[in-house]
Amino acid sequence: MANAYDRGRLDLPFTGFCTFAKAPICPDWDAIDATVAVLGAPLDMGTQWRAGARFGPRAIREASTLFSFGHDGAYDFEDDVTYLTADQGRIVDIGDADIVHTDQIRSLANIEFGVRKILAAGAIPVVLGGDHSVNIGCINAFEGEAPFHVVHIDAHLDFVDERHGVRFGHGNPLRRAAEKPWVSGLTQLGIRNVSSTNRQGYEDARAMGSDILSVRQVRKLGLDAVIARIPAGARYYFTIDIDGFDPSIAPGTGTPSHGGFLYYEVLELLEALAKRGQVIGIDLVEVAPDYDHTGGTAILAAQLLMNVIGRVLHHRR
Amino acid sequence: MANAYDRGRLDLPFTGFCTFAKAPICPDWDAIDATVAVLGAPLDMGTQWRAGARFGPRAIREASTLFSFGHDGAYDFEDDVTYLTADQGRIVDIGDADIVHTDQIRSLANIEFGVRKILAAGAIPVVLGGDHSVNIGCINAFEGEAPFHVVHIDAHLDFVDERHGVRFGHGNPLRRAAEKPWVSGLTQLGIRNVSSTNRQGYEDARAMGSDILSVRQVRKLGLDAVIARIPAGARYYFTIDIDGFDPSIAPGTGTPSHGGFLYYEVLELLEALAKRGQVIGIDLVEVAPDYDHTGGTAILAAQLLMNVIGRVLHHRR
Amino acid sequence: MANAYDRGRLDLPFTGFCTFAKAPICPDWDAIDATVAVLGAPLDMGTQWRAGARFGPRAIREASTLFSFGHDGAYDFEDDVTYLTADQGRIVDIGDADIVHTDQIRSLANIEFGVRKILAAGAIPVVLGGDHSVNIGCINAFEGEAPFHVVHIDAHLDFVDERHGVRFGHGNPLRRAAEKPWVSGLTQLGIRNVSSTNRQGYEDARAMGSDILSVRQVRKLGLDAVIARIPAGARYYFTIDIDGFDPSIAPGTGTPSHGGFLYYEVLELLEALAKRGQVIGIDLVEVAPDYDHTGGTAILAAQLLMNVIGRVLHHRR
Amino acid sequence: MANAYDRGRLDLPFTGFCTFAKAPICPDWDAIDATVAVLGAPLDMGTQWRAGARFGPRAIREASTLFSFGHDGAYDFEDDVTYLTADQGRIVDIGDADIVHTDQIRSLANIEFGVRKILAAGAIPVVLGGDHSVNIGCINAFEGEAPFHVVHIDAHLDFVDERHGVRFGHGNPLRRAAEKPWVSGLTQLGIRNVSSTNRQGYEDARAMGSDILSVRQVRKLGLDAVIARIPAGARYYFTIDIDGFDPSIAPGTGTPSHGGFLYYEVLELLEALAKRGQVIGIDLVEVAPDYDHTGGTAILAAQLLMNVIGRVLHHRR
Amino acid sequence: MANAYDRGRLDLPFTGFCTFAKAPICPDWDAIDATVAVLGAPLDMGTQWRAGARFGPRAIREASTLFSFGHDGAYDFEDDVTYLTADQGRIVDIGDADIVHTDQIRSLANIEFGVRKILAAGAIPVVLGGDHSVNIGCINAFEGEAPFHVVHIDAHLDFVDERHGVRFGHGNPLRRAAEKPWVSGLTQLGIRNVSSTNRQGYEDARAMGSDILSVRQVRKLGLDAVIARIPAGARYYFTIDIDGFDPSIAPGTGTPSHGGFLYYEVLELLEALAKRGQVIGIDLVEVAPDYDHTGGTAILAAQLLMNVIGRVLHHRR
Amino acid sequence: MANAYDRGRLDLPFTGFCTFAKAPICPDWDAIDATVAVLGAPLDMGTQWRAGARFGPRAIREASTLFSFGHDGAYDFEDDVTYLTADQGRIVDIGDADIVHTDQIRSLANIEFGVRKILAAGAIPVVLGGDHSVNIGCINAFEGEAPFHVVHIDAHLDFVDERHGVRFGHGNPLRRAAEKPWVSGLTQLGIRNVSSTNRQGYEDARAMGSDILSVRQVRKLGLDAVIARIPAGARYYFTIDIDGFDPSIAPGTGTPSHGGFLYYEVLELLEALAKRGQVIGIDLVEVAPDYDHTGGTAILAAQLLMNVIGRVLHHRR
Repeated sequence: MANAYDRGRLDLPFTGFCTFAKAPICPDWDAIDATVAVLGAPLDMGTQWRAGARFGPRAIREASTLFSFGHDGAYDFEDDVTYLTADQGRIVDIGDADIVHTDQIRSLANIEFGVRKILAAGAIPVVLGGDHSVNIGCINAFEGEAPFHVVHIDAHLDFVDERHGVRFGHGNPLRRAAEKPWVSGLTQLGIRNVSSTNRQGYEDARAMGSDILSVRQVRKLGLDAVIARIPAGARYYFTIDIDGFDPSIAPGTGTPSHGGFLYYEVLELLEALAKRGQVIGIDLVEVAPDYDHTGGTAILAAQLLMNVIGRVLHHRR
Repeated sequence: MANAYDRGRLDLPFTGFCTFAKAPICPDWDAIDATVAVLGAPLDMGTQWRAGARFGPRAIREASTLFSFGHDGAYDFEDDVTYLTADQGRIVDIGDADIVHTDQIRSLANIEFGVRKILAAGAIPVVLGGDHSVNIGCINAFEGEAPFHVVHIDAHLDFVDERHGVRFGHGNPLRRAAEKPWVSGLTQLGIRNVSSTNRQGYEDARAMGSDILSVRQVRKLGLDAVIARIPAGARYYFTIDIDGFDPSIAPGTGTPSHGGFLYYEVLELLEALAKRGQVIGIDLVEVAPDYDHTGGTAILAAQLLMNVIGRVLHHRR
Repeated sequence: MANAYDRGRLDLPFTGFCTFAKAPICPDWDAIDATVAVLGAPLDMGTQWRAGARFGPRAIREASTLFSFGHDGAYDFEDDVTYLTADQGRIVDIGDADIVHTDQIRSLANIEFGVRKILAAGAIPVVLGGDHSVNIGCINAFEGEAPFHVVHIDAHLDFVDERHGVRFGHGNPLRRAAEKPWVSGLTQLGIRNVSSTNRQGYEDARAMGSDILSVRQVRKLGLDAVIARIPAGARYYFTIDIDGFDPSIAPGTGTPSHGGFLYYEVLELLEALAKRGQVIGIDLVEVAPDYDHTGGTAILAAQLLMNVIGRVLHHRR
Repeated sequence: MANAYDRGRLDLPFTGFCTFAKAPICPDWDAIDATVAVLGAPLDMGTQWRAGARFGPRAIREASTLFSFGHDGAYDFEDDVTYLTADQGRIVDIGDADIVHTDQIRSLANIEFGVRKILAAGAIPVVLGGDHSVNIGCINAFEGEAPFHVVHIDAHLDFVDERHGVRFGHGNPLRRAAEKPWVSGLTQLGIRNVSSTNRQGYEDARAMGSDILSVRQVRKLGLDAVIARIPAGARYYFTIDIDGFDPSIAPGTGTPSHGGFLYYEVLELLEALAKRGQVIGIDLVEVAPDYDHTGGTAILAAQLLMNVIGRVLHHRR
Repeated sequence: MANAYDRGRLDLPFTGFCTFAKAPICPDWDAIDATVAVLGAPLDMGTQWRAGARFGPRAIREASTLFSFGHDGAYDFEDDVTYLTADQGRIVDIGDADIVHTDQIRSLANIEFGVRKILAAGAIPVVLGGDHSVNIGCINAFEGEAPFHVVHIDAHLDFVDERHGVRFGHGNPLRRAAEKPWVSGLTQLGIRNVSSTNRQGYEDARAMGSDILSVRQVRKLGLDAVIARIPAGARYYFTIDIDGFDPSIAPGTGTPSHGGFLYYEVLELLEALAKRGQVIGIDLVEVAPDYDHTGGTAILAAQLLMNVIGRVLHHRR
Repeated sequence: MANAYDRGRLDLPFTGFCTFAKAPICPDWDAIDATVAVLGAPLDMGTQWRAGARFGPRAIREASTLFSFGHDGAYDFEDDVTYLTADQGRIVDIGDADIVHTDQIRSLANIEFGVRKILAAGAIPVVLGGDHSVNIGCINAFEGEAPFHVVHIDAHLDFVDERHGVRFGHGNPLRRAAEKPWVSGLTQLGIRNVSSTNRQGYEDARAMGSDILSVRQVRKLGLDAVIARIPAGARYYFTIDIDGFDPSIAPGTGTPSHGGFLYYEVLELLEALAKRGQVIGIDLVEVAPDYDHTGGTAILAAQLLMNVIGRVLHHRR
């Protein structure tokens, strides 16, 4: 397939509309024709500290254009592979879920609605948060699908059952996920520091089958040993809280926590899983552009997603 | 009374805890002993564009210390009056209402609870938002009090009845206020620009007795004529959205709108009302520190509030 | 016509793709069906101080969504008019001209190409810069059209003929415009301060028929007298450099100059011209988001453009 | 005289070293050959709130290059005068006074030393602060010179005699100046808001001969009436605290105060004085770049100084 | 002990006053009842490059609320320990030392006064700077106490004896400490890069018994070997300059130096010492919020201090 | 040789003009008397994403003053060597090349002209960009000199031959260098991520003799093995794109790419080469201060250059 620069335009990254990876728009959610469909979930009512993640989808889309030079695909000289070519799969951007301010439940339902549409079309949903509570809508949408294993990258366990009646905020999603019959297991990586979850939360998580590893534990074990703890050949859902990364590369988030993952640590882990099983959905949450003054966090999110999607499409059967 | 600098400390503004105007803390809400009691309402779930006003109370408190040099009172050489002396009244800071993320209704109830405690103690509540929906909690707390006139400074009418089930967001508070039997009338000043309220909203507001004036209309009429439209000798409640001011001096807010009021325009208006009737409560909302990079908006809020409170205390009987 | 919120979505401003005013996209430049067509011109190679205006189109589009609540039209209570209703005209966003780095001439030609396509479709072009050199491409595109009068809002005269071989930078566009047979006259408003143009430039401008007024001169004359100096019933082209505005409301630009216009001064002037003649094209240039940390400059640009376009559509026959 | 662009270089503002107005450097303080000599005074130990003015000289010099296009002089079309031509006077930049951290007295002495060198050379000193305490060093240097009248632009009176032993901080300079036999009088303009000086300070200032006017009082009187209160034909020293300006155009300062002067108000006042008497020295203080994120405050300082210096040189005999 | 969320409030981190770790205030310095007492030292007159550390105490207190969810203690799942429970010790915040601008000596004396009060109450002082010169006041306060070993984390040696009469700036504290009879030794870790101290300074430091290691040397030796060089069972004082950390995680400081420590390197070192001996005092200095745009540096300081204090309280006898 | 602080001034880093390392200015390019001559190349027309590197030279010069305390030389206690003493070599700053906006070719010629002047004087050129296209001017200037090996630190290969006629943008320089007969070879280090160069570009680079290593490959090989791949005893030219470093320490650049080098990795590599051969020229490019809000990237550039220059001067024969 031809490069875009063989057509009439040079199409530098700063030109044109900001869809994810400059992918085509698909406003008709009943006519999604894609391998991967990107949905924005600009919801941040679930935050307990700094808000602002509602502008995450826009920032990630904008950052993704930096990597969209109009080539057909992205050549990786380390792998000697060209990822993201048209013949490996089609990406579309279906826009955002409708968020209703002051109404968390309805907003989550709208996110669920969008993901259900993507699944109905046979595409892999990639959801751009928003705070981590958007994951609740995403996981709900998989009701009735075959079971899958959730791989969770985060500084926080997000396993609070209920506090003051709150069950659907950004401290609750993994608990909500663990309750679902269609979630077969959880691996929670990067968890560290003074927690929003007390001892009981950790005990509950382990009791419900979660495998919890801190950044230091992941490093001590090494990539292969960590991967070996995750079921082989399974269906995987990735839920990536950007604060799983170190604040040095992901300052633009609500609740940064020092001592986090670096870029290649997460990329190599997700790449290994893309080879080990079938990735059925991804959400990347908690990018808050107001705290991302030079755009590096959004660039990290876009760079990671484009590389992960490229590897998922390349390795899937 | 002695100046603080006659005691052992110089107490420059950058030292010490950040309570409003370095006023004493009153954590026991059943023992408020004050003429004016300041309450923070760090709620921003009601926003339709940029959030962040949850950090407004902290920013305004911090900015208020700039004006707290440890003198007894603030001498104004233009008026040849020393305001804010201890013998004119006592200010306390009672801290913040408890905000429950994802639960707008409960959070508003908590704000209402705090204001009721202040009123029960016979003090004038000064509430620091948070987005404009916090006004709903404030006005609710006056149930059973003698009627009063609401003076509203804002770029937006905030008079939406309901959209998609939303009745308590930051586009609704003046509509909610107008419905209350204990609100005897409304004057809405500074309203301008492409509105979040359609034609019906304006018609409803007028039908419910609101007097609406744009910035240009206020300027054309002049201060005296505007004041004359507001009932004399009445009880006044001030609800001040910082976006009533021009973005040049109040950039730190969620939905700035060009063409707004300048500092003295609002100060002189509120000062005239402090002479004309009895100020029974104040809220100042929508200061969003994340968009206030040099702190000027928080300084504006603090400077305005301290001058207005000084005048209210000086002129009341 | 129904409001968008009667349909299935609330569509708050922060959701959805960032086209200008959330207008539909028109990627096929041979099938433009519109009354007004918006084109981005992300070019900033012409700058003599700070660059960054290449991200102006994206910032203005993003800011315009703040004013896009899904109502049908924008009700203005001061005028008691609803502007921007569907029956007054259709707006589309055709994306960006293709910019070729290091090649100013080719980039200007690409802008000219886009404007020609808009004119061929019978639509009014609204071009989002980019630095002021993009105006050269815009004016070129009108070759063969009936003559028109250029109304220029700017701090700078931009009337340099040539320096060191430079004829198409952001200090040259009005000189280039004045040379065109299809430009019947120029009114240059807001010009002030230590200039990039020496005495000769002013003399040339006047010799070529330009009417030059500083901000103070405009204020002294008053709106009506300024309007009276501009030919009545003519075809007008507006070229608006955002630095014509005061840095207090337009900090986000490359070469700010203190003492500029305020919001209503420019809006009322352009509104008066929308009534006085036929507006055939608009460019708004020099919004540089990197210097616009809270977005106020982009909001000014969007607020002005949406109000001006609304008035142009309302008043045209 | 030829423009610089007739020589080999275009010399755009962003090229070259950052001296004030791209003036030549004069490192040998015993060989100052100039009409105007610029000295940096990067001292901010005197601040009572936010520091950072130590980087003011660098920021103002950098901003001044924006107005340095290599023309010979700056043509002002409103006045039809070319200011700052070589034949009206020569400007040099002599660098900075040596600041010794933790030692305010010695640092002030070093500033005084530099100004004495300038005066000894027969040049007009223009000192770039630094906080307002640098004025103490400047005024001291005039010991033995003919008396002069101090014109003070500021939000604050800066007339504290002593607090906790502090006599040379940024709240004291005008008191220190008023004590000098060679200061014949003071006019203090722009003073406003909750003050760092109590009632006694104002009474002292008036008793020592100061004429104090607020921004509102200046506006009510009008330019001519204000000028008339200042002795005609006298020697004037200008001490300009950037916070005399409104925070909308001068956010980059330690203690902003809303309700300040706009650009032309101060320029026209200083221009009128340049015609009315002999300007013998200028300091401009309190530009704090850390709070000046887009550089507008430094640009204001540079724009004002270059225009004032131009007028001083043009009107002096 | 009950969690705070079992009481009436949820107390999210963004609500309430900003004391360190939301600890109770103790304004009466003669009635300190605590195991750990936190004192702010907002002094930055000692800086040789960028000031601003005077706002460090406020920023660290504010950041510490992020980790204050109202649980009783902080559960660490890696250690399976709950730190900071009420039964391990009581933390109070006694506010700030009084800083007198232009008077470094008096300000240091005021810091010393506060630390003496804490020591007299039998509590462990934790001092929040301010620049590193505040350490001079801290160490002075220990006069008469049993000897202790100073553990110094910093990019700079801070061992200048005197330059131009300066003996108490932020380049001098470790030299001042080394001179004290009650300081039994020094270990200086993280020192690197073009230094403010010349060869003589290093030789003096070594001659006075200091053990100096760069970041690379610490990494090469490994944690255990570094710890082994520090006397076992001793009394330790930690003086932590935030610029000992890498600029990637601590940009918010006056004199950043690339190549610094990462989070766990310092935490593990201090944790090992908390087990190895008795920690008798801590200062953490040079957090300058003006250079910490997203708050990450203050979060680092708060996260480190809370974890270190937790371990000190847990491991002490 | 005496330290500067033995002379009359303390000369803290924030005082004085901003030349590189506070070196003397050499405005006469025909009288360069130096071992190392620094030239600014403020050109950013070659950028494909974010511009702003035109202010790189100013930012790096300003940052370099942080490391300029007036000592004679910089003592490194790890090496026990004092670098940058006067007897090891003389550094001068010759100012900036003249940039002509809209004219990339002429601007590159002006950079070439400056480098030729430096080479003619027998000095080592150190060029401060500007975007990476300035390297084209630098390499051109070596025409006729003895062959040398280019060592390239970058995230991007910059090996595009031509796209849409563009041959001299910031994506082309290494291709242009490889074409020169006087370039004997290339080593390209740090290359990573979705590239602006497609597979063909890599194949061309390898075919033209380039040795390409990613960050991960460099780490896997280790410093010694990487050095061994570079010809020993050769003449080396260093072209350092600041985006070769990780965004955590170099956010202030146009096209950051996660996963980059850390500080010591590059310093040790360049130090090893300074010992292994003869360094004949250096350029450091793509520092864009608008994205470097706390100055850390400029500090990195200055810190690296001063250390590398020190080592080059120390180790050369």
